[in-house]
Amino acid sequence: MRQVAILSIGQTKVDEHWDKSLKELGGEACFAAMQDAAINKVDALFVGNMLSPLIDGQNQLGTFFADWVGLWGHEAVKVEAACGSGAAALRAGLMAVASGEIESALVVGVEKMTDKAGHDVTAALSTAADADYEVEQGVSFVGINALVMRRYMHEFGWQHSDFAPFSINAHANAMYNPNARLHMNITVEKFESSNMVATPINLLDASPIGDGAAAVILVPAEKVDSVPGRPRITISGSGAATDTIAVHSRKDPLFLSAAHLSAKRAYEMAGVTPQDIDVFELHDAFSIMTALSLEASGFAERGQGPRLGLDNEISPGGRVPVCTRGGLKARGHPVGATGMYQIVEVVQQLRGECDETQVEGAKIGMAQNVGGSGATVLTHILKVD
Amino acid sequence: MRQVAILSIGQTKVDEHWDKSLKELGGEACFAAMQDAAINKVDALFVGNMLSPLIDGQNQLGTFFADWVGLWGHEAVKVEAACGSGAAALRAGLMAVASGEIESALVVGVEKMTDKAGHDVTAALSTAADADYEVEQGVSFVGINALVMRRYMHEFGWQHSDFAPFSINAHANAMYNPNARLHMNITVEKFESSNMVATPINLLDASPIGDGAAAVILVPAEKVDSVPGRPRITISGSGAATDTIAVHSRKDPLFLSAAHLSAKRAYEMAGVTPQDIDVFELHDAFSIMTALSLEASGFAERGQGPRLGLDNEISPGGRVPVCTRGGLKARGHPVGATGMYQIVEVVQQLRGECDETQVEGAKIGMAQNVGGSGATVLTHILKVD
Repeated sequence: MRQVAILSIGQTKVDEHWDKSLKELGGEACFAAMQDAAINKVDALFVGNMLSPLIDGQNQLGTFFADWVGLWGHEAVKVEAACGSGAAALRAGLMAVASGEIESALVVGVEKMTDKAGHDVTAALSTAADADYEVEQGVSFVGINALVMRRYMHEFGWQHSDFAPFSINAHANAMYNPNARLHMNITVEKFESSNMVATPINLLDASPIGDGAAAVILVPAEKVDSVPGRPRITISGSGAATDTIAVHSRKDPLFLSAAHLSAKRAYEMAGVTPQDIDVFELHDAFSIMTALSLEASGFAERGQGPRLGLDNEISPGGRVPVCTRGGLKARGHPVGATGMYQIVEVVQQLRGECDETQVEGAKIGMAQNVGGSGATVLTHILKVD
Repeated sequence: MRQVAILSIGQTKVDEHWDKSLKELGGEACFAAMQDAAINKVDALFVGNMLSPLIDGQNQLGTFFADWVGLWGHEAVKVEAACGSGAAALRAGLMAVASGEIESALVVGVEKMTDKAGHDVTAALSTAADADYEVEQGVSFVGINALVMRRYMHEFGWQHSDFAPFSINAHANAMYNPNARLHMNITVEKFESSNMVATPINLLDASPIGDGAAAVILVPAEKVDSVPGRPRITISGSGAATDTIAVHSRKDPLFLSAAHLSAKRAYEMAGVTPQDIDVFELHDAFSIMTALSLEASGFAERGQGPRLGLDNEISPGGRVPVCTRGGLKARGHPVGATGMYQIVEVVQQLRGECDETQVEGAKIGMAQNVGGSGATVLTHILKVD
């Protein structure tokens, strides 16, 4: 495989974009990435999206966006892996450039979720779970995560408030990200008194949905020079792995084995260990997921994820900075776009563009994107080289 | 790019499989491909599917099937390009193996369409068209093709009966394919008196939907030896291209420019011309599409596609054999699976397994899979080498 670099990035604010169509929303991130690279053509387009058939009545998003952003005739395809769709599209684009078949790829994650009523969105999100054995029982996606969180608290002896630092850190960091959906600081008291969604998950454990799009342009690394203020950033590690689709089928529902496997593959490819990671954009769809991702990826012992929050190790100045731009919790979780927001945010860190939440001297960043309840996990490691 | 070979194939009959779940249907083709290769593990799974979120309430089909077919932990992803999803998944698997990142890929196209009422399926299929500008007007997918066919007949002076040979050939060939949905010979008289669907497209111009799955296993070509009765078959050409998603946006709605571009790319990669193609599995979703694909791919002059049928050049003994296993018209069109059926059928031809519809001495075969009304087109060329 030839090495692949991220030439440029683009994103929209995560918000309720009722004034923008799906085309306009995704197009905005694509045009921003093109502008950031000062080019207007690429060989191929890879789109990550989960819900457009259900929410927007639109399939074939690859061609849909190629047409809109001026890539008429060019190759284009959509990749779907539930909430892991963004990073799955990145990996497809990475393989295509790495293979030598194409010389440049635009990868965009896009999701428009707020045009439908909440119960429609909840039903649409449940298509990430096992339709035959989970959804059939009436369990929602947050319900599945609530069962996992309850069991985790029981097994390892944590209180609900022990998860508060994860959400507090995410919200604090989002204050400095103009593209974040939520700009409000929270406290332990607010965290504890928030409205319940599915016991023990309350509103401040859960990430908000939203409309958003984020994009990058990939090219062979040898075609990119480092220039002042714009280091060359390569995708040094990429790992994808799966677990059973239904949580009840797992020997241990409290260990994200797909996160573990995909991180292991990414570490091996990049030739690094967890100790080398300067910044980690993880998939905090629910606060329990932060703990499980930290454990599965080698940053905490089994059952000890919350300790990293309580010891203040996860802030931008800590040992394992996570959610430095707000994470899913406060930047927002436009599901098929999220994986690409994570990549864009790691690039921002490696470029040193994060102002108050900048991780000093960040040279190696990791992003981990999760589809379903840990069913599909993709981990990417980016390096300044 | 390293060269990639098709190690094995598997498929189900195209039918109304009310007795099989989505899992079982796709699994059957995967297991058949594994059995054909005498292996039970591959590095990664690529799934082509269009409608499962809408028809089956299930997303994340990569992991869904990896879990079911015994690939726990392995990489898996779904690729979607409307009715071009099957070949789009093949191309994603091809890139991954060609890049050197993985050593084997199982690619399956799967679609389960007959569990819902006809109007639900018609609505689901319309997500291939432009939701904002085509579907919004109330036009169905067959309606769009009917407008194209009417215009084509007007521009080039053809009668409806001139398209009969395409459907007659497809049905005649399907008689010898046990996996075809329809086993019935038709005549010009039947063709002309068939029920109208959307003028001028009648029931015998149109392909039937169905439930089905087809799969292949890809490996690096250097790992495959030719053995008697089982030649080494490589993917020598692969081209993907797009057009505007809405037909009304095209300068010339009667020319499939994406088919032209993707075929051109595949010819160049394989180092062949249309004259070298021994068998051509094209995307005859409607009889008009047969004419347009033959023209765009270099087998007929503009407006002269029907001539190949009238001159009996398209039968297995003809100059340009098409739909040798029944095509979409008679094998059936389980939309996201169709592109993989075409690949499996070309392999069957190159292996010499097609009995009464065998193309004598076939060494180079082509498959062309179309998403939307010519919006996404993928062309693959397979060679005995």
